[in-house]
Amino acid sequence: MPFKATILSLYPDMFPGPLGHSLSGRALARALWALETVQIRDFATDKHRSVDDTPAGGGAGMVLRADILAMAVDAAAPAGDPRPRLLMSPRGRPFTQERAHELASGPGAIIVCGRFEGVDQRVIDSRELEEVSVGDYILSGGEVAAITMLDAIIRLIPGVMGNIESADTESFETGLLEHPHYTRPAAFENMPIPDVLTSGNHQKIHEWRMAEAERLTRERRPDLWESYMADEDDVD
Amino acid sequence: MPFKATILSLYPDMFPGPLGHSLSGRALARALWALETVQIRDFATDKHRSVDDTPAGGGAGMVLRADILAMAVDAAAPAGDPRPRLLMSPRGRPFTQERAHELASGPGAIIVCGRFEGVDQRVIDSRELEEVSVGDYILSGGEVAAITMLDAIIRLIPGVMGNIESADTESFETGLLEHPHYTRPAAFENMPIPDVLTSGNHQKIHEWRMAEAERLTRERRPDLWESYMADEDDVD
Repeated sequence: MPFKATILSLYPDMFPGPLGHSLSGRALARALWALETVQIRDFATDKHRSVDDTPAGGGAGMVLRADILAMAVDAAAPAGDPRPRLLMSPRGRPFTQERAHELASGPGAIIVCGRFEGVDQRVIDSRELEEVSVGDYILSGGEVAAITMLDAIIRLIPGVMGNIESADTESFETGLLEHPHYTRPAAFENMPIPDVLTSGNHQKIHEWRMAEAERLTRERRPDLWESYMADEDDVD
Repeated sequence: MPFKATILSLYPDMFPGPLGHSLSGRALARALWALETVQIRDFATDKHRSVDDTPAGGGAGMVLRADILAMAVDAAAPAGDPRPRLLMSPRGRPFTQERAHELASGPGAIIVCGRFEGVDQRVIDSRELEEVSVGDYILSGGEVAAITMLDAIIRLIPGVMGNIESADTESFETGLLEHPHYTRPAAFENMPIPDVLTSGNHQKIHEWRMAEAERLTRERRPDLWESYMADEDDVD
């Protein structure tokens, strides 16, 4: 069984969207992962097919109803489905490269995409939805977040990337931001490629790249640098 | 002139993708923002239309060439174009809600989507591309990151959201994660809506929501909680 993503959304037509192109799209066509969408509105019980209502206690926006969403989740993920049930939400645990690896090696995920002001807390609690955030900003809904998370996961599914080595030296895989890259032409607007990279000295090239990765991480992401140094200390 | 996004990509067909639906899609149809895509490959100079080459110094993957991408950037953003030139990259400055507001109130953005192992550093330097990251994970390319960033920006463009108030109480706008939401039905699987929310006492409701937002932030995001407390101290 390949990785299977089941998406619960009010906009199922957004999928596969960008995931139908390029690397993810080819992998989907080769059945290295599978995609299923569930229209939450199909579980509405009134003739207006309404799925949301005003927030208890007042305030702006609308809240996705617990009863409707619970029925959709129960239909999409019957008892015994081993896949994690995720709710894309800015309140969630930040999604990381580590989590992408973990999910890519598992059976897939049930992914609930919220809209409106939010989702009734009781369906989050009763259906044990795990809130996951792709970043500290607000999106129009969970759909774009789900696409982002899936894009990061899919490329790590065995067989999807041609060159496994390519993934191992990237940003975050080493705990550092990646070093700068150069390629031909050798001269571009009077800017040469750094000499060391054309020296053929593999040890020196490795040292330069490591030093640059450390410099960039220190300058741009003191938060990552701090946890990288803490991990290094643990090893010593 | 509305907000105009010019996307440089090897997969322009990925756009508008999810941005053609729902809130962003309606805003696009109403010309509250504009989208232009540029196929980087159109600037290739050889008969194979190649845009990438092997990394100087060796290693896995391919690097997007400085000369080709520079021509694409120059064509898309002629001298005097006031829009910021962004490169979606995991090495970039983390994209935040604050930056989304800043960009939403500006003329738009030139957005370069990388693919392959990376982009030749010399085009980043010479064209002053600002690297922006949507999160600490690796995507198959900059396209999905660009869609995510634009989704966060577009909803903040004046006129796009019906209810401006709705944006102000969301996660990050207050420096805290958002409090839990509830809506009808009043009883769901023996789980009631918290009494305070149906009390009609607006002061108590406000206090409960604030306390819940603080609790969630403290529990889930000690990093946000710390900077929130530091800001509070500054105010005192």
